[in-house]
Amino acid sequence: MARTSRDIRSANRLGVIQQVISAGTTSRQRIAAATGLSLGTVATLVGELTALGLLTEAGREDSGGGRPRGLVTPNPRGGLLIGVDVAETYVHVDLFDATLTRLTGTEEALRPNERRPEQVVAHIVSGVRTVMAGAGGRILGAGVSVPGQVDREGGVSVFAPNWDWHDVPLRDLLARSLALPLHLDNPLRAAVVAELWSGAARGRDDVAVINLGTGVGAGLAFGGALYRGSSNTAGEWGHTTLVLDGRLCRCGSRGCVEAYVGAPGIMQTLRDLAPTSALLHPEDQTATLGALAAGLAAGDPIAAKVNAETGRYLGVAVADLINLINPELVVLSSWVADRLGVPLLDEVRAVVTQHALRRPLTDAEIVLSTVPGNPVSLGAATLALEGFLTGGR
Amino acid sequence: MARTSRDIRSANRLGVIQQVISAGTTSRQRIAAATGLSLGTVATLVGELTALGLLTEAGREDSGGGRPRGLVTPNPRGGLLIGVDVAETYVHVDLFDATLTRLTGTEEALRPNERRPEQVVAHIVSGVRTVMAGAGGRILGAGVSVPGQVDREGGVSVFAPNWDWHDVPLRDLLARSLALPLHLDNPLRAAVVAELWSGAARGRDDVAVINLGTGVGAGLAFGGALYRGSSNTAGEWGHTTLVLDGRLCRCGSRGCVEAYVGAPGIMQTLRDLAPTSALLHPEDQTATLGALAAGLAAGDPIAAKVNAETGRYLGVAVADLINLINPELVVLSSWVADRLGVPLLDEVRAVVTQHALRRPLTDAEIVLSTVPGNPVSLGAATLALEGFLTGGR
Ligand SMILES: [Zn+2]
Ligand SMILES: [Zn+2]
Repeated sequence: MARTSRDIRSANRLGVIQQVISAGTTSRQRIAAATGLSLGTVATLVGELTALGLLTEAGREDSGGGRPRGLVTPNPRGGLLIGVDVAETYVHVDLFDATLTRLTGTEEALRPNERRPEQVVAHIVSGVRTVMAGAGGRILGAGVSVPGQVDREGGVSVFAPNWDWHDVPLRDLLARSLALPLHLDNPLRAAVVAELWSGAARGRDDVAVINLGTGVGAGLAFGGALYRGSSNTAGEWGHTTLVLDGRLCRCGSRGCVEAYVGAPGIMQTLRDLAPTSALLHPEDQTATLGALAAGLAAGDPIAAKVNAETGRYLGVAVADLINLINPELVVLSSWVADRLGVPLLDEVRAVVTQHALRRPLTDAEIVLSTVPGNPVSLGAATLALEGFLTGGR
Repeated sequence: MARTSRDIRSANRLGVIQQVISAGTTSRQRIAAATGLSLGTVATLVGELTALGLLTEAGREDSGGGRPRGLVTPNPRGGLLIGVDVAETYVHVDLFDATLTRLTGTEEALRPNERRPEQVVAHIVSGVRTVMAGAGGRILGAGVSVPGQVDREGGVSVFAPNWDWHDVPLRDLLARSLALPLHLDNPLRAAVVAELWSGAARGRDDVAVINLGTGVGAGLAFGGALYRGSSNTAGEWGHTTLVLDGRLCRCGSRGCVEAYVGAPGIMQTLRDLAPTSALLHPEDQTATLGALAAGLAAGDPIAAKVNAETGRYLGVAVADLINLINPELVVLSSWVADRLGVPLLDEVRAVVTQHALRRPLTDAEIVLSTVPGNPVSLGAATLALEGFLTGGR
């Protein structure tokens, strides 16, 4: 339980910059009100962040009779941040300014046979070099999100199930080509940080951000702060059991949530319902989910059935999360949620209403992600900013 | 996310008293090291707690060459605390001194037809009067744990599924007869607080305390502090789905964890395996669990089978919790865990090893509760002490 004074100072500094980036231009008084810090502490932290070049003074505002209040604003020229989303099928790299505004980006496809660490690293390096070409200013850091379980202190991909990686020293491999402060984490954590700083979870306390992609997980935030668990692997909700002795999951267990609501699980549901459907593109998750989305829009009954069945699995699993965690907000994020959108959200809401307990249900809002662009690369860049400010590497 | 300065002061004050009660006699320096607070802050808080009569000076210790260090110790004469565990079949009341040492206790049975709020309130009042008879000193407060969902600020039992209570104003009903500061909460929260202050979770950060009784749930602590969720209903792990479309649960859903590992669920497993077994005492959970425990000790094959099956259900559900929350400690608590003990623990550990992901598994220790006596009444009394110190009623 020991939070050292240094931890608390770091957390407060992050709280202030997060508040200013969320609010745009604001006053020390409003920062104090939003963070619960004293005005004196806020003034000190604003001074530190200004000295670091991350904030600038922005004139004064009338305070209704009292002394005019000094305003501060995030400084876009405070430095550059890189966010990398390494997914199963692509490497996406975005460049941001110090206010987390996206400047440019690039995406390189990962072919099915490109699964060796050196191959993936080569794509990350090439993507980072592309976005940095012509960019001026100091780089504050790069955040790199890779699927699976990550040791962020060591910069190691402990386990990436899709590529069967075990203990890959990613940061060391990247450091051979990139002279940047590198921060490794996984998409669950990147996505929840993106929602907290720039999305639907701004100003919220207890939140679950559900990543629906090839893999499935739930990034968690408690008391407005990212929750990592005791070894940075919290959120493996995709590998909690929904159907005892059910479908085989790629983690080796049976009946996991992911086996039903991950992209391959949705394809399995489609295959079970209509093995010869034209919606099914074997071996191609993106095409199949695209066809399902188009089918939903066109009123295709098979697409509607797959959506309803997926919504039932997902809704029960979201109700479980609501009963266990009692969050005020559940966000559906990542590309499968993006593709199926409102029709899936509607099914989920209906099923959750039937399955969650009354009191936690009352509090739990369920929404689609509102983060523009790629939430994982944005979140990874945000984690790099956090690393810069807290002195982690 | 706003934690006010007052919240932080209250939390720090609790951190200090918790540390002293856990450690017994200790120094300001050791309190500072354990809590992460500065020595100056610790000295101030120790002064406040001494003024409140909860701590006393306890001489000096040699500090290895430096100035001798002043010691402090919890003061048993600082006041009295009452802890009440209202369960489905009994009302248990304990009296503690201000160091959370139990002085005396009493238990009154609740007959199956005693389910009206006035009847339960009468047993609480009578139990409290019994333990207070002859007790000298001021009462700091009484903590009352009732099953189900609780509005602690309002002192209302929002929903107690066993008695079908809805919005019962328990604190107001109790206040008619008891002139005490009353703090209402539920057994999940009482049990986790008991483990944090007085049990296996002392000094631990991320913890789940599983209550295995007639009802089932998981009290959660993150960063060493009780986690309540956004409406104080976090931990309804008993009502997360283990078997989609499985056994009907008393919450109205199907396949909930509680329907398999709560006492009635274990009786159902026994009935399914051996409908005519002599171990089965229809309508009597306590007798059936007692017979199962005796059967396990005697090598009865049916008892072993029920234990293995229960351990399988519980193990998968505990693995789910480990994957989602990544705790460092899982504690099995309450009377069913107490009754089945090590044989159940052994099954659970084996199943968890098969089902949890490698990295969160490595960190997660699974143990039986080590809290002496009734953890829920102790936790309720601890919550009353917390309420006294933070100015809640
Ligand atoms: Zn799995
Ligand atoms: Zn249930």
